Amino acid sequence: MITIAIDAMGGDFGPQITVPGALKCLEIVPDLRLILVGDEEKILPLIPRNLSSFVEVKHTDQFISMDEKPSRALRGMPDSSMRLAVQSVADGSADAIVSAGNTGALMAISRYVLQTLPGIDRPAIMARLPVKEGATYMLDLGANVDCQAEHLYQFAVMGTAFAAANGQVVQPRVALLNVGVESIKGNQQVRLASHQIAQSEALNYIGFIEGNDLFSGKADVIVCDGFVGNVALKASEGVMRLAAQKIQQKFSVWWLKWLGLLLRPFLKSLSKELDPTYLNGALLVGLQGIVVKGHGSSDEQSYTNAVMQAYREVANKSNDHFEEIMSQIEF
Amino acid sequence: MITIAIDAMGGDFGPQITVPGALKCLEIVPDLRLILVGDEEKILPLIPRNLSSFVEVKHTDQFISMDEKPSRALRGMPDSSMRLAVQSVADGSADAIVSAGNTGALMAISRYVLQTLPGIDRPAIMARLPVKEGATYMLDLGANVDCQAEHLYQFAVMGTAFAAANGQVVQPRVALLNVGVESIKGNQQVRLASHQIAQSEALNYIGFIEGNDLFSGKADVIVCDGFVGNVALKASEGVMRLAAQKIQQKFSVWWLKWLGLLLRPFLKSLSKELDPTYLNGALLVGLQGIVVKGHGSSDEQSYTNAVMQAYREVANKSNDHFEEIMSQIEF
Repeated sequence: MITIAIDAMGGDFGPQITVPGALKCLEIVPDLRLILVGDEEKILPLIPRNLSSFVEVKHTDQFISMDEKPSRALRGMPDSSMRLAVQSVADGSADAIVSAGNTGALMAISRYVLQTLPGIDRPAIMARLPVKEGATYMLDLGANVDCQAEHLYQFAVMGTAFAAANGQVVQPRVALLNVGVESIKGNQQVRLASHQIAQSEALNYIGFIEGNDLFSGKADVIVCDGFVGNVALKASEGVMRLAAQKIQQKFSVWWLKWLGLLLRPFLKSLSKELDPTYLNGALLVGLQGIVVKGHGSSDEQSYTNAVMQAYREVANKSNDHFEEIMSQIEF
Repeated sequence: MITIAIDAMGGDFGPQITVPGALKCLEIVPDLRLILVGDEEKILPLIPRNLSSFVEVKHTDQFISMDEKPSRALRGMPDSSMRLAVQSVADGSADAIVSAGNTGALMAISRYVLQTLPGIDRPAIMARLPVKEGATYMLDLGANVDCQAEHLYQFAVMGTAFAAANGQVVQPRVALLNVGVESIKGNQQVRLASHQIAQSEALNYIGFIEGNDLFSGKADVIVCDGFVGNVALKASEGVMRLAAQKIQQKFSVWWLKWLGLLLRPFLKSLSKELDPTYLNGALLVGLQGIVVKGHGSSDEQSYTNAVMQAYREVANKSNDHFEEIMSQIEF
C-alpha cells in the first residue's frame, strides 16, 4: 500500500479541485491510500461513500494563502494543511506529499521538516521537458530565484542522479543554460558553475547550451537559475498560444478554416505539454522525502497527474536509487 | 542622403554575408550610402561596379573575433573594423552603424565611443516581439547579464521613451518580467526595480508579467535582465522548431502528410519571427547614436533587414524623438 498526503487546501481553487483530482487516482491504481489534510467541512462532502475506506481526512483550519510570505508560513503557521501534510512524510505515515499551494512556502516547509540530502543546500524544482526523443530534465524551475555557482553545481548533481536513477542513460549529459556557448559568455555565477561542474569526474558535462536548445534533446539534464528556468518554460508555453492564434489568422479564409480547427486541439495540447509543471506537477528534488508540487492553477486532470507522479516515484523506489547515486557523488 | 557604417568583418560569416546583405539595401532605398569597414581585399571583389559610387570602403586588417573578450577588444584593438565603424558615427561621417559581431565588444565600444544618454548607465538590446496585435518592445535581450534594480529601472525608461517616440501609444504600459505576479515573487533586484518604477510618475507601470504573457500584447514594454531576456526569446524560438517537428510526426500517415508539408513553411517563418534579433537585428538603445546589432549567424536577408532597420531609425528621426522624450523624464 502506498500512502500519499494531499495538501487539500493548496492551489488557486482548494478542495474543489484537489479532492476530486486526488480521488480519481484511487480508480487508476488499487494500492493507493490518501491522507487529505485541510478543512473537513469542505473536504468530507466531496468524498463518495464507496471511497471513504481509502481516505483519511486530517482536519485543520489553518491554511497558507498563495501570497503568504514563506517565512511567515514556516514560522507562524504550525498547523497549516501544507505543514501537516509534509509532516506526515517526515513521521512515516505517508510516502509522499502533493501540494499545489504556495511554492515558496512549500520549499521552506519541506526543507525545514524533511531536511535536504547530504551536500545539498537547497531543493530545486525539476520537470521533464517535452523533447523530440528521449527525456530532458530541467532544474531549477522557480524554487531558487537567486543562485550561486555552488547551487547550480548541486542542481547538476541532482539532475544527473535523477536521470541515472530513472535508468534512461548511464552517464547523463549535463548542460548549463547560458546566453551563448563560448566560455566568456554569461554572468559570473554561470561561469564559475561551469568550471566547477567540468572538474567533477562524476558528471558528464557537455558545456553551455542556449535557450533554443532546451527542447532539442542535446542534453539529458539542463541546469539553470530558478528565475531563468521559470521564465523560459512559461515563455515557451506562451509562444505556442501565439502560434495557435497565428495559425487561425493564417487559415481564416473560409476554404481553409477547417485546417485551423483541425490543428487547434493539437497545438493546445502541445502548449500544455510545454508547461510540464502544469501538466504533471514538478518534483522538488534534494529532499529526504518525495514532494510533488502541483501547479497553482491546476485543473482536476493535472492534479490527478501530479498525484500519479508522486505515486510512481514511490512505486519505482526512484528516490532510493536517487539517494544511492547521490551518496556516491563527491561534493 | 543617409549614411550607414557597416562592420563588414562582424558576424560568423564576415564580408560574404555582410557585404551583399548591405548592398541589397541600395536597391531598396535610393538615398542610402554605405561605409564598409574591413579588409578591402575581401570586400572590394564583392561590390558590383554599378554600385561603387554609393559605397566607400574603409580598409583595416584588424577585426574582433566572436570569442574575443570585450575588454581586450576595447582596449587592445584600436583599429578593429567594429571600432572604426562606430567611430564614424561619433565623428558624424555616418548616421548609424550596423554590426553582427561580438555583442559584448559592440556594447563596450559603443558605450566608450558614443557615450550613453544622460541618466543611462548601460545600453540595452531591445527588439520588437511578435504579438497578436500592436507592438511589444522587450529589453534587455543579452547586453547586460547581471542587472541591478537601477538598471532595470533605466530599461523601463528607455523602453517607454522608444515606444512613445515610435508613436504607437501615448502612455506605454510597462511591465517587469518575473516568476509570478504577486508582489512577494522574484529576486531582490526585480522587487526593488518594481518599487522604483512604480514611484515614477512618467512611467505607466502595470506590474509584474510572467513568461507566458511575453507574446500576449498585455504590455507595450517588457523589462528584464539580459540573461533572462536572451534565454526566454531563444527558448521561444526553439519551441517553435519542436512544434514543427511534432506536427510532422503527428501528420506522418500518408493521407495527412501534405498537411504537415503545408504547415512547415508557415511554422518555420513563425519560428524566425520569434527571434526578432535574428530576423531584423536589434537596437542597442541608450547610446548617443544609432547602433543596430545583427545576429551573429545572420544570413543575407536578415543582414539586409538589420541595415534597413538602421535606415528607418535614421529616416524617422526616431532617435531625436527618443532623446527628446528621455530628456523630459526625471531620473
